[in-house]
Amino acid sequence: MKQVNIGLLGLGNIGSGTHKVLELNRSCIEKTTGLDLRITRILEIDLERDRGFTVAPDLFTQDPDVIIGDPEIDIVIELLGGIEPATSIMASAMKAGKSVVTANKAALAENYEILTETAASAGVDFRFEASVGGGIPLISAITESLCANEFTELLGILNGTTNYILTKMGEEGHDYFDVLKEAQSLGFAEADPTADVEGYDVANKLSILMSLVFGTRVHPAEIPTKGITTVTMDDITAAEEDGCVIKLIASAFRSDKGVECFVRPTWINKEHPLADVRNEYNALFLKGNAVGSLMLYGKGAGPFPTASAVLGDVIAIAKNLKT
Amino acid sequence: MKQVNIGLLGLGNIGSGTHKVLELNRSCIEKTTGLDLRITRILEIDLERDRGFTVAPDLFTQDPDVIIGDPEIDIVIELLGGIEPATSIMASAMKAGKSVVTANKAALAENYEILTETAASAGVDFRFEASVGGGIPLISAITESLCANEFTELLGILNGTTNYILTKMGEEGHDYFDVLKEAQSLGFAEADPTADVEGYDVANKLSILMSLVFGTRVHPAEIPTKGITTVTMDDITAAEEDGCVIKLIASAFRSDKGVECFVRPTWINKEHPLADVRNEYNALFLKGNAVGSLMLYGKGAGPFPTASAVLGDVIAIAKNLKT
Repeated sequence: MKQVNIGLLGLGNIGSGTHKVLELNRSCIEKTTGLDLRITRILEIDLERDRGFTVAPDLFTQDPDVIIGDPEIDIVIELLGGIEPATSIMASAMKAGKSVVTANKAALAENYEILTETAASAGVDFRFEASVGGGIPLISAITESLCANEFTELLGILNGTTNYILTKMGEEGHDYFDVLKEAQSLGFAEADPTADVEGYDVANKLSILMSLVFGTRVHPAEIPTKGITTVTMDDITAAEEDGCVIKLIASAFRSDKGVECFVRPTWINKEHPLADVRNEYNALFLKGNAVGSLMLYGKGAGPFPTASAVLGDVIAIAKNLKT
Repeated sequence: MKQVNIGLLGLGNIGSGTHKVLELNRSCIEKTTGLDLRITRILEIDLERDRGFTVAPDLFTQDPDVIIGDPEIDIVIELLGGIEPATSIMASAMKAGKSVVTANKAALAENYEILTETAASAGVDFRFEASVGGGIPLISAITESLCANEFTELLGILNGTTNYILTKMGEEGHDYFDVLKEAQSLGFAEADPTADVEGYDVANKLSILMSLVFGTRVHPAEIPTKGITTVTMDDITAAEEDGCVIKLIASAFRSDKGVECFVRPTWINKEHPLADVRNEYNALFLKGNAVGSLMLYGKGAGPFPTASAVLGDVIAIAKNLKT
């Protein structure tokens, strides 16, 4: 059994979910991978919160340098969220020889080159499956399984909040603001839903995907982005009469002008596989010149699906570490 | 650039597709992976067939030992099909220190232990993404990205011929035999369609998936299997009246009795994502205890989608080879 020590940055919802899934599936992971994954340090301020499990108090620190400087730690999982200090801490960890796993789409969309180049020059692994599409293994599909393809097009439903709202508007005929309130009460939308409903969250994710699918770096602020706040029941009825549903679509495709992209509410024909992606589910539809049309569908958010992707990345890195 | 030499067993439809995709996407593969993949030997009897590309005549051999014994060859791609001699040649290649990639579901379902154990004891890689679901990256998803999950259920539409026939029966109201004839004329069904329409092809694939998803080895002959030859328009209408479609489903799930499985025509509620998998497309629906419900959808057969999976496996192995 190969022991791998992990420094965990952040024990909020996603960090706690990652801790829980690791304990829940520990014997299964040990059996299939031969890895003994141990969280040996945790960066977290809130030591009092009831997370449904206990952590030895001496694992906690409030100083990232304690984790970065710990020679026993092999892999750092960054689940702080936000652009800073997350980016700086990840870069420092890489320079200290630690491989990094993150779910942080904002930091990655803003600082993609810095982070990938720092990892490359430090000779460490850097994986971020959970940053787009939650538990859906779409980044490893693009960069590994499908890497013999040239891609021509991607279409994504990459935000669960807006897909939930549009699904309920279409199926129950309620107005945008009524459904938003319901989504907030069910925990599918934030108290301040701006980043979701204005499409900024999706633009971050599309920026990351474009780097991987087309090798084209586009800052999220450069992506033409329109959210769902102005979608009316009249729009939805008009689409319905034409055999379509309205989805908030992230799109990028090759054209004469290079690679074009947008985020906006889009009519999707009901025969297209994306039309049936309902409620809080996410999906990525890809066209490759060998594989043809492909769709990956699943839960794009939530502590457990995100933990699935984070731990998948940790295991991929751990398998490559020297014993 | 790291040069990797490949011995290709079989230059039929799939072998030719693999050769074509490698040449078509060579510059893209070199750019993203830094690998120079070269097919340096080809086992093939038919030297005269017009494949749409030319091969230097001295690459061909009719003796598998020429490839197995070639110290310059790193990876063997097995695309002969059938249980033997494919199994014996793969095992010999592994014992000679070569990693093996195959698309051969029949050999794998029959000889799963022999092949995986031979690879393990020889210390070589053995990958078979293309054996189930063609170009859909489902095996790497199960064994790599999602390996932090315990799985509870799998449901698959794993045969394009039967899914095409059932889709056309449901949407156009034609009888089974009429649609089968049409599928044969379009190349979606073989002249002898037995392995497809009786469910044997799906049973092979389910056997492979069960080893990976549940760690349970079930020989395909032990899987209760019923094909689609007795599905009538009355059955399809009855399902339709209940809000369902009929699909040929491969199913395996945990129960009190252990892991249960079957292949049979099954009513699928129209709200289930598998209901919308139409025509020749394939899909795998999985439930994991972290990731929740997940579906992977795409082309389950054909030279180019299969080549996508084969070359994805080759690249994964080649990245691990020492320079």
